[in-house]
Amino acid sequence: MKYLLVLLLAGVTASAQIKKEQLNLMPWPQSVVLNDGNFALNKNFKVNITGNPNPRIFGGVTRFLRRLDGRTGIFFEQGFITKLNEVPTAELQINCTKSGKIGLYEDESYHLDIKTNKITINATSDLGALHGLETLLQMLQNNNTSFYFPASKISDFPRFTWRGLMVDAARHFQPVDVIKRNIDALAATKMNVLHWHLVDDQGWRIEMKKHPKLIEKASDGMYYTQEEIKNIVKYADERGILIVPEIDVPGHASAILTAYPEIGSKVITLTGGTSEKNIQGTAIATYGIERNAGIFSPTLDPSNPKTYQLLSELFDEVCPLFPGAYFHIGGDENEGKDWDSNPKIQEFKKKNKLTTNHELQTYFTMQLIPMLKKHGKQLMGWEEILTKNMSKDAIIHAWRGPNEGVVAGQSLIESVKKGYKTVMSNGYYIDLLYPIASHYLNDPMPKGADLTAEEKARVLGGEATMWTELVSPLTIDSRLWPRTVAIAERLWSAEDITDLASMRRRLDVVSFRLEELGITHIRNKDVILRNISNNQNIDFVEEFTNVCEPLKGYKRNKGGTEYQMYSPLTLFADACTPDAKDSLAFDDAVAQYLANKTPENKAKVTAFLNKWIAVNKGLVELSANAPLIQHFLPLSKKLNDASQELLLVLDNKSTLKVDDLKNLIELCNSKDHADVELSVYESLKKLI
Amino acid sequence: MKYLLVLLLAGVTASAQIKKEQLNLMPWPQSVVLNDGNFALNKNFKVNITGNPNPRIFGGVTRFLRRLDGRTGIFFEQGFITKLNEVPTAELQINCTKSGKIGLYEDESYHLDIKTNKITINATSDLGALHGLETLLQMLQNNNTSFYFPASKISDFPRFTWRGLMVDAARHFQPVDVIKRNIDALAATKMNVLHWHLVDDQGWRIEMKKHPKLIEKASDGMYYTQEEIKNIVKYADERGILIVPEIDVPGHASAILTAYPEIGSKVITLTGGTSEKNIQGTAIATYGIERNAGIFSPTLDPSNPKTYQLLSELFDEVCPLFPGAYFHIGGDENEGKDWDSNPKIQEFKKKNKLTTNHELQTYFTMQLIPMLKKHGKQLMGWEEILTKNMSKDAIIHAWRGPNEGVVAGQSLIESVKKGYKTVMSNGYYIDLLYPIASHYLNDPMPKGADLTAEEKARVLGGEATMWTELVSPLTIDSRLWPRTVAIAERLWSAEDITDLASMRRRLDVVSFRLEELGITHIRNKDVILRNISNNQNIDFVEEFTNVCEPLKGYKRNKGGTEYQMYSPLTLFADACTPDAKDSLAFDDAVAQYLANKTPENKAKVTAFLNKWIAVNKGLVELSANAPLIQHFLPLSKKLNDASQELLLVLDNKSTLKVDDLKNLIELCNSKDHADVELSVYESLKKLI
Repeated sequence: MKYLLVLLLAGVTASAQIKKEQLNLMPWPQSVVLNDGNFALNKNFKVNITGNPNPRIFGGVTRFLRRLDGRTGIFFEQGFITKLNEVPTAELQINCTKSGKIGLYEDESYHLDIKTNKITINATSDLGALHGLETLLQMLQNNNTSFYFPASKISDFPRFTWRGLMVDAARHFQPVDVIKRNIDALAATKMNVLHWHLVDDQGWRIEMKKHPKLIEKASDGMYYTQEEIKNIVKYADERGILIVPEIDVPGHASAILTAYPEIGSKVITLTGGTSEKNIQGTAIATYGIERNAGIFSPTLDPSNPKTYQLLSELFDEVCPLFPGAYFHIGGDENEGKDWDSNPKIQEFKKKNKLTTNHELQTYFTMQLIPMLKKHGKQLMGWEEILTKNMSKDAIIHAWRGPNEGVVAGQSLIESVKKGYKTVMSNGYYIDLLYPIASHYLNDPMPKGADLTAEEKARVLGGEATMWTELVSPLTIDSRLWPRTVAIAERLWSAEDITDLASMRRRLDVVSFRLEELGITHIRNKDVILRNISNNQNIDFVEEFTNVCEPLKGYKRNKGGTEYQMYSPLTLFADACTPDAKDSLAFDDAVAQYLANKTPENKAKVTAFLNKWIAVNKGLVELSANAPLIQHFLPLSKKLNDASQELLLVLDNKSTLKVDDLKNLIELCNSKDHADVELSVYESLKKLI
Repeated sequence: MKYLLVLLLAGVTASAQIKKEQLNLMPWPQSVVLNDGNFALNKNFKVNITGNPNPRIFGGVTRFLRRLDGRTGIFFEQGFITKLNEVPTAELQINCTKSGKIGLYEDESYHLDIKTNKITINATSDLGALHGLETLLQMLQNNNTSFYFPASKISDFPRFTWRGLMVDAARHFQPVDVIKRNIDALAATKMNVLHWHLVDDQGWRIEMKKHPKLIEKASDGMYYTQEEIKNIVKYADERGILIVPEIDVPGHASAILTAYPEIGSKVITLTGGTSEKNIQGTAIATYGIERNAGIFSPTLDPSNPKTYQLLSELFDEVCPLFPGAYFHIGGDENEGKDWDSNPKIQEFKKKNKLTTNHELQTYFTMQLIPMLKKHGKQLMGWEEILTKNMSKDAIIHAWRGPNEGVVAGQSLIESVKKGYKTVMSNGYYIDLLYPIASHYLNDPMPKGADLTAEEKARVLGGEATMWTELVSPLTIDSRLWPRTVAIAERLWSAEDITDLASMRRRLDVVSFRLEELGITHIRNKDVILRNISNNQNIDFVEEFTNVCEPLKGYKRNKGGTEYQMYSPLTLFADACTPDAKDSLAFDDAVAQYLANKTPENKAKVTAFLNKWIAVNKGLVELSANAPLIQHFLPLSKKLNDASQELLLVLDNKSTLKVDDLKNLIELCNSKDHADVELSVYESLKKLI
């Protein structure tokens, strides 16, 4: 009888209808309707494709099956899918009207219809169908013994056409496998652009057959071969991702000038001769690959015809590697120091009636437009390229914000009002390790700005930027994910999808699922912690990461010289992430306790305090055989001391004067240890 | 005063002399002498290189610095090393007499001398120096605050010249990054050969420009481009590793014959005509890429001149990709079924006086020798190629053992006695998931065999084999490591280095350090467990892996059809490894208790039993939301039931009859769940 009851209960579990708010869809689709019943998965589950899709759908469906294999352990009979209409009776039917084109404004919509005995995905193009498959994977549910999809109807399409991620492969080189697995993650989160920052002061990363000096002298051997680039472009195409390459000019040019100093702007004045006769002259400066982080002066010479000759040749070699319609030429952060001190350039400005360096840079940028047009490419650049004479064909990449003395969103408004198509990155600088909420609530469409429909249409979308001064192949995934999923939702879903609690709940599952694509954000954290703890148990170190966040903004690596582009970055801060796990939970516990001082609510707070005391004790013990723990032990000690005193405070047993207590808590506001800060400091303060 | 004391104690710790048996060196060097004092590491530590080394040393030293950076968090000032004698005053001086050649019989010796203020590595070739750097990394010690090298003198050289690993990229394709990181791991463990099994029934993995059909029809799009191969060969060369490619013929030929059925041996008899007149004929069979595991009949036709024409062309394209002097042509497991049933081949045998299929295969193999010689390559093949007429130039790869009905080591003895240079793989089949001890104690030099010095010299060394029927990119590292380090020690270190306890202690540290090379054997286990537990806490599942081992030998995937070459292998067995963590510890606890039934010894045993009861309870709870746990829950239940009863037995409170108790324990000997077995079964039995 007991067994029968269990079976009955299992039956109840299996058929329990899931609610919409329990679904872990992200980006949230435009329309979701749940119906009664479930589609049960079994080994015979098969897929069939009809219509006129691009062949990329075959690989997409095969990968879909393998991921479903992996999650469910079912290992379906169907292997590789290589043809249309292979299994007309299949349970999952995918129909696409036409072949999807990789680029802007393509129809990426899809309709997913899950019935209890049949699933259909209808899409205009295979790109929409690929999105539909990702949604279907996210619809997977389980009870205690089996997997199923809940009956439902989903209609979906993106809000913005440009949903991008920029990856900087210059500061810390990012090998092919890093790029590939992140392309998979972009596809899984319905993003469609990878902006590949390939050249900067710290290196030139593209194999050049006609200009081999660039890789011989300016890459430290770390570059992508042309075949690797073509292979990645193909890989991206198969997953619906457009690649936009960037060669950053005229500033950020240390690497280019290391190979070609003759087109640099810096002048060296030579003084010689005798006391009777002074001989003065100028010479070309030499340059070296930059090892540090910062904004540097090496800049191309816009007055030198050789500069344009070389750039034209470089574009001739690089453009054919990238079939996409856009080419990013950077154009940012050129301070013009070397221009100001170069008499020839000053003369050139006068002659061409260019009154400011900004106008001079516009002159420079305008020369590049035909070089790119020749290859069917539209020029894109960071917002500094925008001046009154800039071609309206250029796409503006808005990035500056309060940190650069610009009101948030202002650059984008100016740009679209002036008639430029614009992509928004201000507010999406995920390398700065700000909390996820700040990115999630940052809408590319400026609120309250008085934009016409035409101007609004020029807001193409947004792009998360992953600059890699402090990011290595070991850590890049944890800097990218899961926060980039929140940006993906902002760019895909309806404007009013802004509930933080819902986002966090869904993100927890979507983040975990990224592991199946090879994303290392979870697994590599433990690798760093094992190194720090010197092969001892990592539980205490891991607990401490739950209350520590890496310094935000530009506070880590001040001056840009503490860490170099070859630094392995295996430190405690590199294992920590924004939105430290215990922060919100502790803040909730404190708020509940302050609102209602029941023993239960008190116990929730003291549980945290006691945990941190135990963590400190554990860390002290581990540190006897782990020098790297010393870096953050003082911070743990501060949290320990505050926790011990707060336990007394909560019991009304503290004998400290208020000021001394405040000082003790204030010590937890330290930013002096191991490049991290305590994320629970603000909540601790509330307890006194 | 208190602080002074702490400082003094720290001083004592720092200068405490380490003992030889505390060093975590592996493979253990030929000579180690410890002296007084330590070399302390700080940010100014620099390296200088002198002599006439191959430039590969520059990258090797740069990587050495980065790894030391990562371990210590010191981040040394020295960046890239690109020249000889850059820092004549550097603390670490490396001198090499000559440029090392990648191949057999090269001098790989080195002398490492660590003094308190200076370290020197002297080596004949840079290959020896690279080994010396690995030893130096393994010499790193720490106290609570700092890192240092103990003063010492090490002289070292390998016992065998062939220290290899075979990786099968045909069964489950292994992407470039998998191959690269494992080349790093081979270099770190002083191995020097990567035997790359590139072609088998399940796929052809080499891009062919002149024979594109092979990748179009027989690779499923999973192959290495020629540039990737060259890139890997270069990568291996830079790390002192010889690559030996393998194209397996004439058997294992399903992939080749999928593209070129016309050179297959299978005959199809056609019967037609009318009742008055029978028309009979033969036709060429068609072939398909094999999806399952096993030994299959598709075999090249040795009587067909086209076979040799094609092979010659294939070698012409493939050989130049591999500068090494050896080419492996497989030659194994050809059962000759299709030869026997092909009248033309039977006729060919008669005509050429080849009485057996074995002689026919020798005829075939002999044709390949000049094709390879033309490219400066020596032929190597699995032991089946050895027959009385086989050229003495061929290198024999001995692999068969008791599983194939051959006495262990017998093939090798026969081979060297007959005059062939021989590499040993029998006993090193790490894909079969046997305990590490079985590989560690397996010496390539047969004990007790009556070999002359000349015959002994023909024993080149050994090779671990990683066949990938049940191994995916996600799991390959945990199948390779750390067990391959034990084989590396067997092949490098002196014959009498056989202490299992010492090996296990050292391996624990060396295994952990492999993580810094990107080896995923530790981190990817948790990825699988997170998937199995459906994003719930993995502690209980992890604990259960500590007593579970994947089925050994050929017991998993019986018949070869349960798992396919595209199966993702994300199951519980794929997270488990040989030598499950708790097995030895529990066995020790049982042995101690049985020897001396003190309360302390009893407590050690009951702690395990209680843990397994708790694990089962935890798994039951998790399984409510994790269907994949159901696969092994019955096994956990069996261990739970046995543990509960044994607790009663230990307290003399069991009321079960002896036979019932025995049966209860015997249930723990099950091999019916989730492709694993309980590693503590034998120890449990001892308790009754």
